Order: sequence, then structure tokens, then C-alpha cells
Amino acid sequence: MSKFWSPLVNDLVPYVPGEQPKMANLVKLNTNENPYGPSPKVIEAIQAELNDSLRLYPDPEGESLRQTIADYYNVSSGQVFLGNGSDEVLAHIFHGLFQHGEPVLFPDISYSFYPVYCGLYNIEARVVPLTDSFEIDPDDYRQPNGGIIFPNPNAPTGRYLGLEHVEAILKANPDRVVVVDEAYVDFGGDTAIALVDRYPNLLVCQTLSKARSLAGLRVGFAVGHPDLIEALNRVKNSFNSYPLDRLALAGARAAFEDKEWFQRCCNGVISERERLTAALEELSFEVLPSKANFVFARHTSRAGEEIAKGLREQGIIVRHFNKPRISDYLRITIGTPEQNDALISGLRSL
Amino acid sequence: MSKFWSPLVNDLVPYVPGEQPKMANLVKLNTNENPYGPSPKVIEAIQAELNDSLRLYPDPEGESLRQTIADYYNVSSGQVFLGNGSDEVLAHIFHGLFQHGEPVLFPDISYSFYPVYCGLYNIEARVVPLTDSFEIDPDDYRQPNGGIIFPNPNAPTGRYLGLEHVEAILKANPDRVVVVDEAYVDFGGDTAIALVDRYPNLLVCQTLSKARSLAGLRVGFAVGHPDLIEALNRVKNSFNSYPLDRLALAGARAAFEDKEWFQRCCNGVISERERLTAALEELSFEVLPSKANFVFARHTSRAGEEIAKGLREQGIIVRHFNKPRISDYLRITIGTPEQNDALISGLRSL
Repeated sequence: MSKFWSPLVNDLVPYVPGEQPKMANLVKLNTNENPYGPSPKVIEAIQAELNDSLRLYPDPEGESLRQTIADYYNVSSGQVFLGNGSDEVLAHIFHGLFQHGEPVLFPDISYSFYPVYCGLYNIEARVVPLTDSFEIDPDDYRQPNGGIIFPNPNAPTGRYLGLEHVEAILKANPDRVVVVDEAYVDFGGDTAIALVDRYPNLLVCQTLSKARSLAGLRVGFAVGHPDLIEALNRVKNSFNSYPLDRLALAGARAAFEDKEWFQRCCNGVISERERLTAALEELSFEVLPSKANFVFARHTSRAGEEIAKGLREQGIIVRHFNKPRISDYLRITIGTPEQNDALISGLRSL
Repeated sequence: MSKFWSPLVNDLVPYVPGEQPKMANLVKLNTNENPYGPSPKVIEAIQAELNDSLRLYPDPEGESLRQTIADYYNVSSGQVFLGNGSDEVLAHIFHGLFQHGEPVLFPDISYSFYPVYCGLYNIEARVVPLTDSFEIDPDDYRQPNGGIIFPNPNAPTGRYLGLEHVEAILKANPDRVVVVDEAYVDFGGDTAIALVDRYPNLLVCQTLSKARSLAGLRVGFAVGHPDLIEALNRVKNSFNSYPLDRLALAGARAAFEDKEWFQRCCNGVISERERLTAALEELSFEVLPSKANFVFARHTSRAGEEIAKGLREQGIIVRHFNKPRISDYLRITIGTPEQNDALISGLRSL
């Protein structure tokens, strides 16, 4: 602790992102990136912006990208908010919509950035345990709160909550914002964006880092009622006017425009997920049903940490969380068929 | 005000960035962008990163860019903090280093984002009037405070404060962080980075948006004692793990490596600034001495707003601030020789 620090700094427990190892030839299945690269049209669109215009500020409102996303989801651009990755969007949500002097609710097994945001903005967090089968029970979200957030599909479990259950949570909390964090929704779930016109308390958050293969470009967005978007814009415009650079804006637009590439990559991940699940089950793993681009699995007799270590020695990186309830599980990103084969062989040899 | 908003949202007075008009063929001298494009080596470096690796997250610590900047300024990488534009860096500074229950001091005529950050983080702001000649008097910064920040050269005045005066402020405030915001320092000032090893309370903030012609790429940084950098890292890692995308990291590195291009662009701006200053004086303007890539000038008899309006009708955009003490001034970005000629002709014809 330095005398120069704001007192809150000392108490922060920052988020720890998945490791980005610098070794070559790794089978990197630890950060849920897409095994397939972005659309060639994304590369072309960025290429077209790669010129002297970089000397000029980008559009602070990102209007063209907001309109592209709005058209894609059949909403209006005034219902779309952009951020420098969905993590920035989430930060502004906690700051601008969750400070009501009551605890924010989220699952006990969930995205580990949520409690970090609570620390940053001095918000009380109340974790709501998942059921024994790692599911969200909407009835557990009928209690006083300052806001509700959960990933759907959930991470790191991969389990998807049907929209009828999302609606039950929305209906039970008409005076609080319910955020559905859909980083992984394109791998088999249905987006709650279909519900935003009916629920003014619903905010849906998405990222281009997963299904759209652009983790390296940092683009996320939220869709909801214009009143919620206005709160986010006020916070954003009090923080950083230009969160998205010119290249990211151009690349993100192209990613939404090339629907065919997107669908092909998602289908590839989904079919590999089903194949990997079957292979893991054959190797005595229990695998939770996943609608994400990863599976969450534990061996019926061996410890998760030990398996992760054994794989690592073979140059295969998966994610292990040393946390209650899930310490025997591994979160394994779906790779290319070759990477998944390498994982399966690696596990066989342990 | 919506019931869903955190109460602070209602009181926010967001920053208003300089207009980014969408009309073509404008002489755009309103947002202090560089009239020269980025180095061709920047374009090449981004080109080299424009591939399938965009599917992968960037290095969350931006280690390679931090080392490049550290080498450039002869400091260590642990003294460098990166952000998505210097506005994000400034936001984290207010959050992580300025919350001490005492007012933060900055000049009355200064970067208008500072009071906005105070609003966002619930910090009291105390403006310190510049002298009658629009200079910072270090003696005015001998009063209880939670931190001090000023641009050097100042914006929108363009006036530069010599490092001996910066040191006077540092010495008078050993228990508080003094932030020197050097967005414009490369156009003729000396950077206070030379002082960071001697003053643990000094933090210097810079951007690649001005002298390095990369406003469209969003890269800023701060240099200071590792304790100050640690506070910023804790805040950053509680907000967004990956603020800089892969393309921005690559382009920014190349911008620091091509010193020749950088120097040539800065020299071009400086010589045009001197030429434009002389021409404005001939047209009965008073021009403050500037070390920035803009001049701050007022006509001896005509109102600033009226001149700005007259220029706008000719497709020439300059910035006018409707604020006490400076409402007759115009902030005019230094353009290319052709743009500056257009401005001079435009003024003559008014």
C-alpha cells in the first residue's frame, strides 16, 4: 500500500485472465478463443481502413457499427451500446446500473470478473448457488437486489438457461436491471435480444471475441431499452469518448456482415464439441451439457489439477479453477479437429 | 432519470469531444489531429498482424509495447502503464490515485475532461485560475489537495510550463500525486519523464493521438514510479484485462521505432505553427505563445463565435469554447501548409 493510492486500490482483487503463454506449438485450449480465424472479409475491411485516416479520431459513437448490429438483431441503433470488449461494457453496467445500495446477485459458479467489478465500484455481491446439477434456478433470484447478472450459457459450466426461465427472472425483478451475459450464446443458445422490446429491465451483453473470432480486436456490445443505453453512454462519455478504434469498428462491421463464415465456424465448433464430449465420456469423464465453445468436465476418479498438469507437460493447456465445488473440473475450449485429437490422445496417455 | 440508473448517472455531465463532421472536403482544424499521417512503418506493422491471430486475445500486459516505450525514454517497463487512449489512462488515475477526500486541483482553463472524471468518481474539483497571461503559477498549487493535474503544454492555451516550475509543484506536494498531461509535449516542450526517477509523486501521461498521428488507433500511456503504476494496474485489471488490441499494440510499437518520421512530422507542424502565428498577428489576432500543435488566438475587435461561424460557412472548422475568460478565443489546429493557407484566406475574406 502506497500513501499515493486511493484507499480502494488496496482492497482490489483484480481479475486474473487465462494465461497467454508465449511458447510456440502449444495446443491452447484455456481461454475459449475460436479455433477458426476471422472472416477474410474482416481482414479486407480492416485493410481498407489501414491508411492515413488513422491520424483522425474514430467516430466516438460508432454509429455505423451500432446500426449494423441493430439491423442484424432487428432493433434500433439507440438500443445498442459499444465497448472495448464486453469486459468494458460490463464494467460500465456495474457502475451505471447496479449501484442501488443492495447486493448484486450472480451465480456462485460464474464469470469471475463479476465480484471484481463489485470491488471496483463498492457494490455488495451476493452469490446465489447453482443447483447440484450446476443449473440456475430462477426461483433463487426472488430476493431484494441491486441488479442481477449471469452468463448464458453460463461459464465455466457451459449450461444454457432456456429463455422461458430468463423471462421468469425478468418478471420477478421489474424494478432492477437483469443482465444476460451472452458471450457464448452463438454456439447453440437462443439470444435474449428477442426479448428486449418486452422487458425494459433486460440488458443483453455480447462479445465479438468468441463466435466471431475477434478476441484480438476488443469489441463488445450491449442491447436493451434506450433508457439503459443512455445510462451506459453517460458513463462511457465520462470515462473515454473513443473506446473503439477505426480498425476495430471496420472489422466488427464486416464480422456481422459475413453471416456465412460465422455460421460455418459456429457449426464447426458445435460438431467438434459433440465429438469431444463423446470421447471424454469414453475416457471416464463426466461432461456437463454445453451450449458454449468449451466443455466443463471431471474425471470420475482422478483430480482435475493433476490432469491439467499432465496435459501441460505435453504442451496442452486447459483451464483449471482451484475453487470450491469445481476444483475437480477442467474447462476445455473446443479446438480444431486436430487440436481436439491431440487432447484426446494426451488424455489417453496419462 | 430512470429508476434503473445508479443515482450518480443522473448527475454526470459527460465530456463533449470535438465534432467529427461527416461532410467531405472540410478543412478540419478542430480536434488537434496531426495533419500528417502515421509512419508507413506503422501501416506495415499493423499489416503484419492482420491475420488469423486476431482470433486470439492480445497480451493483457502489452509487455512488448511497454518495453519499447521504456527503452525510448530510458526507464524500465515497470514504470510504464498502457491505456486505450490517454483518456482511459486519465480515468484510471482519477479512480486509483486521486480519491483522498480532498479536492483535486487543476487550472480553470484546461482540458475539460478533468471535471468530468471528478463527477464520475465523486471527487471534489477545485479549479485554480491561470494568471492573466494564461500561465500556471506554481505558487497557486500550495494548498491542501487530493492530487494535481495539468496539461503541459496546456490546452487549449498552448502555453508551456518549464520543467523547473513543474519541479516546484512536485516539491511543494510530496504526499500527493502530480500528473503532467503531456498530450502535446512533442511539439516543442521537454517531457517531465526525465524527472520520474527523482520524484515518486510524479506521473506523466502521454498519447499517440497527436505527435504520432494515431488518434484513430487509441493508445495512451503513463510513466512514473512503479508504486503508481501498480495502482493503475490494479484498477485496470479490475476493469478490463485487455484494453489494447493486437493491431494497436503493433502499430504503437512501430510508431516509437520510426523516430525519423516522427521528428519530420513534428518539425513540419512546428514550422507551420510559427508561420500561422505570424499570419494571424498580421490579421489583428493576439496569439498566445504555443508549444502545441494548435494556437489559441483572439481577434482584437471581433467576437470568437462570429469568426468561427464565418469560417464554418466556408467549410473550415475550428474550435470555439463558450466559456468564461476564453469566449473570444479560437483554438486552431495546425494543418498542412495548404489547410493553413485556406484558413488564412478564409479569415481574410471575413
